[in-house]
Amino acid sequence: MTKPRPEPAGREARLSRASAGRFSLYLRHLERFEQEGLTTVSSSQLGEALGITHAQVRKDLANLGHLGQPGIGYPTHELIWALRRRFGIDREWAVVVVGVGNLARALLRYRGFRDQGFRFAALFDADTRKVGQRAEGLEIMAMERLGEIVRSTGANLGLVTVPAEAAQTVADALVAAGVRGILNFAPIVLRLPAEVSLVNVDLAIQLEQLAFLVHLAGK
Amino acid sequence: MTKPRPEPAGREARLSRASAGRFSLYLRHLERFEQEGLTTVSSSQLGEALGITHAQVRKDLANLGHLGQPGIGYPTHELIWALRRRFGIDREWAVVVVGVGNLARALLRYRGFRDQGFRFAALFDADTRKVGQRAEGLEIMAMERLGEIVRSTGANLGLVTVPAEAAQTVADALVAAGVRGILNFAPIVLRLPAEVSLVNVDLAIQLEQLAFLVHLAGK
Repeated sequence: MTKPRPEPAGREARLSRASAGRFSLYLRHLERFEQEGLTTVSSSQLGEALGITHAQVRKDLANLGHLGQPGIGYPTHELIWALRRRFGIDREWAVVVVGVGNLARALLRYRGFRDQGFRFAALFDADTRKVGQRAEGLEIMAMERLGEIVRSTGANLGLVTVPAEAAQTVADALVAAGVRGILNFAPIVLRLPAEVSLVNVDLAIQLEQLAFLVHLAGK
Repeated sequence: MTKPRPEPAGREARLSRASAGRFSLYLRHLERFEQEGLTTVSSSQLGEALGITHAQVRKDLANLGHLGQPGIGYPTHELIWALRRRFGIDREWAVVVVGVGNLARALLRYRGFRDQGFRFAALFDADTRKVGQRAEGLEIMAMERLGEIVRSTGANLGLVTVPAEAAQTVADALVAAGVRGILNFAPIVLRLPAEVSLVNVDLAIQLEQLAFLVHLAGK
């Protein structure tokens, strides 16, 4: 394990989405290693878990500072927290959900979110019949209250789980309410101001990818 | 638009997952252009839609054969079908779903799948109270019938929407039943034989990515 060279200033902000994706995987595997009682992990163990070379692991993790020691490895717990700090998930993020259908109900029960420091702060739906009902312990509120509630809860992130035709209107309302990032499950391309971050979860694309991989594997 | 050079044999199989992801986006935007009545599209239009350079568009699409014409562009409909053939989605894929909770119900209603040629062939659940019930017009079947039904429907793909602790067992059962690809929504790392393709949809990772982007944007 070679000593990492100091990185030029501003390097952090230039991390690509691809590297960001890999850091999530590091985090997931490191958490598993820690659960299994490993206090240190080697770049080879991490490389094997992620399916990349140990050289790439060392290069990636050099970004986080001088954590690894030659012949010993990385201290598991410290590396997890270095990654969480880097991601900005060493604190709790409050999330609002717009559109309380089956998908939202599945997400509300999804243990992974809470484990990673995401807290559902409030639920909203345009359907007045749903307003006042509860889902997973949270009251479903009218869209008109979005701005007020985003401000009072300090929510930064919004989950859009409405049908495609409603998604842009909902995204605009979330932006107006002051949300800084949107996780969009609707299969449309949202138009957002540059200062609002967007991650799309297009489930049809994921299934297409799979079909494509199977198609290629069968050649 | 320069004439593409002939590609060496085997090039197709070496397409990375990243390129595969981009091809899905091409398809999505081309379908929208076709709906809007555009019979030809330029590499600049596609580049703008995808947020990449027109040079990259031309390079990507050269893989599909001699479709583009200088000063005219690509014929929209032909390009869509060239992409669908390349993906192996110029035909219907039958899909089985294991684990009929809220997430599965949301996916069954998800219009995007049907539009892209994916057909839900059968549903399975380990919970005997659910067996015999219906969801979106399909009967929920006992796990014991998985092998028989996969064979009789010719299903190639399996969706795993069970809790993390059940996912590996379910994946093993799908592999034994003859499924060739798995779309996994459970937040664990599945171990599969090399000949079975896997795409993971880790929803916590998607939300982490978003937090990370917001965190960086706020610096």
